[in-house]
Amino acid sequence: MFHSKMRAEIHEQPDALERTLRSELKKFAELGRELSARRPRLIVLAARGTSDNAASFGRYLLEITTGIPVSLAAPSIFTLYQAQLDWRDVLLVAISQSGESTDTNLVLEQARAAGAMTIGITNEAGSTLAKIASRAFLVKAGKEKSVAATKTYTGQLLMFYLLAHALGAPLKVDDLKRLPGYAEAALKCEKAVHERADRYRFMDHAVVVGRGLNYANAFEFALKMMETCYVVAERFSSADFLHGPIAIVEQAFPLFLFAPPGVTWGPMREMRDKLASLEADILTITDRSNPEAAKGARVITVPCRLHARAGLPADLFTPIPYIVPAQLFAASLASEKGLNPDQPRTLTKVTRTL
Amino acid sequence: MFHSKMRAEIHEQPDALERTLRSELKKFAELGRELSARRPRLIVLAARGTSDNAASFGRYLLEITTGIPVSLAAPSIFTLYQAQLDWRDVLLVAISQSGESTDTNLVLEQARAAGAMTIGITNEAGSTLAKIASRAFLVKAGKEKSVAATKTYTGQLLMFYLLAHALGAPLKVDDLKRLPGYAEAALKCEKAVHERADRYRFMDHAVVVGRGLNYANAFEFALKMMETCYVVAERFSSADFLHGPIAIVEQAFPLFLFAPPGVTWGPMREMRDKLASLEADILTITDRSNPEAAKGARVITVPCRLHARAGLPADLFTPIPYIVPAQLFAASLASEKGLNPDQPRTLTKVTRTL
Repeated sequence: MFHSKMRAEIHEQPDALERTLRSELKKFAELGRELSARRPRLIVLAARGTSDNAASFGRYLLEITTGIPVSLAAPSIFTLYQAQLDWRDVLLVAISQSGESTDTNLVLEQARAAGAMTIGITNEAGSTLAKIASRAFLVKAGKEKSVAATKTYTGQLLMFYLLAHALGAPLKVDDLKRLPGYAEAALKCEKAVHERADRYRFMDHAVVVGRGLNYANAFEFALKMMETCYVVAERFSSADFLHGPIAIVEQAFPLFLFAPPGVTWGPMREMRDKLASLEADILTITDRSNPEAAKGARVITVPCRLHARAGLPADLFTPIPYIVPAQLFAASLASEKGLNPDQPRTLTKVTRTL
Repeated sequence: MFHSKMRAEIHEQPDALERTLRSELKKFAELGRELSARRPRLIVLAARGTSDNAASFGRYLLEITTGIPVSLAAPSIFTLYQAQLDWRDVLLVAISQSGESTDTNLVLEQARAAGAMTIGITNEAGSTLAKIASRAFLVKAGKEKSVAATKTYTGQLLMFYLLAHALGAPLKVDDLKRLPGYAEAALKCEKAVHERADRYRFMDHAVVVGRGLNYANAFEFALKMMETCYVVAERFSSADFLHGPIAIVEQAFPLFLFAPPGVTWGPMREMRDKLASLEADILTITDRSNPEAAKGARVITVPCRLHARAGLPADLFTPIPYIVPAQLFAASLASEKGLNPDQPRTLTKVTRTL
């Protein structure tokens, strides 16, 4: 088996999630009390890169479970166009692994100065982000050494569950305590993933499709393949894909699908059938609670049955365990290609953009 | 020169814009009166495909010029998860060429039932969308026969200028009356674009980069290349691109940049220099008002100087004239490849998704 910091950090995820939960639960309970007295009218999420993918998950989770409208900030509107937004009754959430993303921090500062409630989510307690947010929440993942973010991504996903809970979403703390175990189960896919990866040695482009709560994972999986394997990887929701881009699919075109149980499975199955009829090359990521998806030809099945609770979407807790095999796949494929996933060409760990 | 419905419809754009302005100006003035009495706290835009790209432009335009927060709806939250959003004081804008996008219409219906103000933007007066919106605005582009949308996209961009104006943005009607002329000037690039296209005959992937008000154009140009030329075309903002995906760029990697004058040019120039140092293959789209960008090696320069007005961003009116050479490029490259851009494989004109 190959060795890289990325792979080591993927394996640290169950512990990192456990630690983060233990450390931040109480702080989110306090936040919950503040927010119940002053419920935001709108939530704005500001982030870049992997953190922006986590924000995209947050958007689905928060709208679905709280009914509060959520918008993903377009930082250039503030940093370049210097527009003044109406920030009244807005909860601004800034997310950055390093806490040093210039543009994310600028949005946070402007929002706070204009009266928004502000929250920072970061892996670095001493960062600028942690200092300038009214409340900072810490992903306790430990220093992330690989340029390719993995453990901080799942940590950020966890933070959004905690935020939804603080905003009164019908999630139980017990549900959240199961998440580290799901990540642990997902790591058991490693051998199966590694054996599959060499088949993709010469893939130079691909499409990843996810929907709803796993839409963010499609972006994150594609980003990992771009960063660490230099694959031109597109990412779509199954609906957007059908509105035009599906035209690029020809025989043997490589596709990766996230196929959780629940409401997204119907449209995803339809799309999978359509892609199969085009003779595309499809790899599906699912778990034991969606046996229909697990039956396909090329499937990675996370070996656990996710806990379902009446009144909550069946795919609610799939994003963390589903991204783990995708991370492993990228790390594995990078090593098949003789690339160093910890230090991709052209990139540095902290990216400063305006 | 090649012939296709797509090409004919690209050429119809100046007239279509003129007609749309003439027909809809008065209706937007009425809307303006209604909105000044009841200013929305949040604007939500619902769309798919090309219309969603137009919505992305609308998001930048409306936030920059009105300060009202804007969110792009994630339709599955309503159609699949059946979440109930807090729609109070929200202006919901649904955009669809055909007016028959199932999911867009469902979001509109739910929003309206829950008390949101609703607007529909469509090319089809008799469509479901036109019927169920409180106010329908019509892109007067005439029937769009090519599956690849062109004239309805620029028509939708125009609609967002009109909406911004109705919301009190400091745009003058005279500014908007110049837009058909800009599209006309952009069509003069056709010969230069056509001569360049054959160089890309064997390109199978590409990245399009735009920023701010031209970010939507990066999505739209990439979509046109995917639909009509079967190129795996990614699209990024220059900032997002630097946060990871730039790792895919190697020598001779094909990139397309929108390079308007104004606040986005600084970061875009920096990125172009970085890409040049990686020996990427760059084609830049600009106009005469950004002479620095026009100086590069492979450049398409829209042959007009866009009217600038103090207090407005210098790139405010570039999106319509800038997308025209991109549309021409896709139509031209499709014909070089012997493909029919009017009827891409796997696609139909009306896409119904949930």
